Amino acid sequence: MKLKEFAREIGLSPTTVSRALSGYPEVNEATRARVMEEAARLGYRPNINAVRLATGRAGAIGVVMTKAGDYQFSEFMSGMADRLSGEDIDILITPMAEHHTGDELQLYRRLAESRRVDAVVIHSPRPKDPRIALLHQLKLPFIVHGRSATDVPHAWLDIDNEGAIRRSTEHLLDLGHRRIALLNGREGLTFTLHRLAGYKTALAVRGIDFDPKLVTHDNFTDEIGFRYARSALEQRPRPTAFVAGSMMTALGIYRAARARNLVIGKDISVIAHDDVFPYLTAENMVPPLSTTRSSIRAAGTRIADLLLQMLAGREAAEIQELWPVELILRETSRPAPKDASE
Amino acid sequence: MKLKEFAREIGLSPTTVSRALSGYPEVNEATRARVMEEAARLGYRPNINAVRLATGRAGAIGVVMTKAGDYQFSEFMSGMADRLSGEDIDILITPMAEHHTGDELQLYRRLAESRRVDAVVIHSPRPKDPRIALLHQLKLPFIVHGRSATDVPHAWLDIDNEGAIRRSTEHLLDLGHRRIALLNGREGLTFTLHRLAGYKTALAVRGIDFDPKLVTHDNFTDEIGFRYARSALEQRPRPTAFVAGSMMTALGIYRAARARNLVIGKDISVIAHDDVFPYLTAENMVPPLSTTRSSIRAAGTRIADLLLQMLAGREAAEIQELWPVELILRETSRPAPKDASE
Repeated sequence: MKLKEFAREIGLSPTTVSRALSGYPEVNEATRARVMEEAARLGYRPNINAVRLATGRAGAIGVVMTKAGDYQFSEFMSGMADRLSGEDIDILITPMAEHHTGDELQLYRRLAESRRVDAVVIHSPRPKDPRIALLHQLKLPFIVHGRSATDVPHAWLDIDNEGAIRRSTEHLLDLGHRRIALLNGREGLTFTLHRLAGYKTALAVRGIDFDPKLVTHDNFTDEIGFRYARSALEQRPRPTAFVAGSMMTALGIYRAARARNLVIGKDISVIAHDDVFPYLTAENMVPPLSTTRSSIRAAGTRIADLLLQMLAGREAAEIQELWPVELILRETSRPAPKDASE
Repeated sequence: MKLKEFAREIGLSPTTVSRALSGYPEVNEATRARVMEEAARLGYRPNINAVRLATGRAGAIGVVMTKAGDYQFSEFMSGMADRLSGEDIDILITPMAEHHTGDELQLYRRLAESRRVDAVVIHSPRPKDPRIALLHQLKLPFIVHGRSATDVPHAWLDIDNEGAIRRSTEHLLDLGHRRIALLNGREGLTFTLHRLAGYKTALAVRGIDFDPKLVTHDNFTDEIGFRYARSALEQRPRPTAFVAGSMMTALGIYRAARARNLVIGKDISVIAHDDVFPYLTAENMVPPLSTTRSSIRAAGTRIADLLLQMLAGREAAEIQELWPVELILRETSRPAPKDASE
């Protein structure tokens, strides 16, 4: 059965039928449900290309894969997939080699030209991110995962990084810690700046001087966590607490502490940010790790949802979601030791 | 400048120019290099859609994302991205919800119909995997990451799972271990069957009876590793060694051992499979973990490379790569304890 026949059979226009079947919510749910039911009843199987031609839609969301080996990436993608699965909408990943960083804007230009995606997701934004101005100019719908301080109106979803790190730093201060190390993300990214601001505010409120020797900026791996914690623990006086960027970073801190016979949760406190990976859980670490927690998978699902809304006509500029972050205390955030000379 | 003009200018046919610019290696390297140079010199920027139209290529490799939250996925994708970056070839991910497993074949039919990909990668194959027969019939080029016992000719790349697990089990037997637990992958997958075969062969050669109570099948997460190891360590006599499916599984075993005051590398030996994640390294675990090692990222890069060769005309049936796996001994594979009653 062809699209036209099917549409005539159920008394709707081919355009409405196409839209109902396109995966994008441009028709109301009742109509869409009816079209799906009738298609099942009459055995109509839409030709995906005909639907795409009729709707002018590519049926894909674009993501430029800039940072290779990023374990957050697959959880975020799984979250998007949860929402897009069953909608006949794919995810088009444009790979970019790490040494080609300068060409990223060019990749977005090509994506827009080729009309192979209906919208894109931007990751790891910087303040005044040039990708935002470019996509706005190209009129390619997009949403930012994170935030950027730019005047260009755009949709974004972010977690409250500043509040999360402020709260965990304050909690450690409440426990008597005075030298608190911060293992922060890569320099220049908005989330890194927000985390640093949260850390500095917590210190400032207590009148404690900021010591740049206690802060580092890098990727979130166990190896980098280990190296930095090892070197921080050689300082005199040494830090008694760590605010860590990720679970992997925390694993490295655990190792550095053990190598110096320091007991985590007694000699050293740790609070790490947890993106909620299904394969590595804070409760299972020894000892169970205190965390600031926000599911990156849930963010992926919600971002896919917001993109569908934008493609159905919702104004990008009105989409601004800031998610609160939970602070979950387990066994690694304890009172500061009386003597931290070793 | 249009494609035709540019081709005339450099004295080649538009088809050759398109092919040289398409990212697929259908013209020889010298011609391709010359076309790229001339394009740079004359300021010719190819219209990607014109090139695709001329070559009849979609410019994308397809991957159906079946298993959500799989941390191997992003490393493999990064490996593919390393090879495809700069070639103007994207990766199209078709999401599939976990509860929609029955529809996977339908997704491949749609991918083939829609002509949005030039080839696909199949993951986690089973023996006689129906996706292989289907893709062969649909004439959509594909390569299998893993192996399948089917008569349908096809390209594949796999690591020697059987040899890896046989070797690690044999090594533990050499060290005097007799009760060796195997934390294997999900049931029914080829790699799981191969690992079990390697384990059984090692035992059989030494005349040791296979005990099904020592083997479990599941996903590779720290939580599952912990739960299974905890229950295995309650057996009397208890296992003195574990062959673990992944680094995450090993983290769970470490925790279960600590909870019983058993020392890894003394009371308990562990050898785990390591896919070489950049963010979690076996050397950094406490104690450093003995592993069977093979980079899943390198596999992704090579698979992208082989797909490009296939699209340039190489016979699929002649592509059969079996990668050896290294056994790397660190501090967790030690002689069996004399008394394993606790």
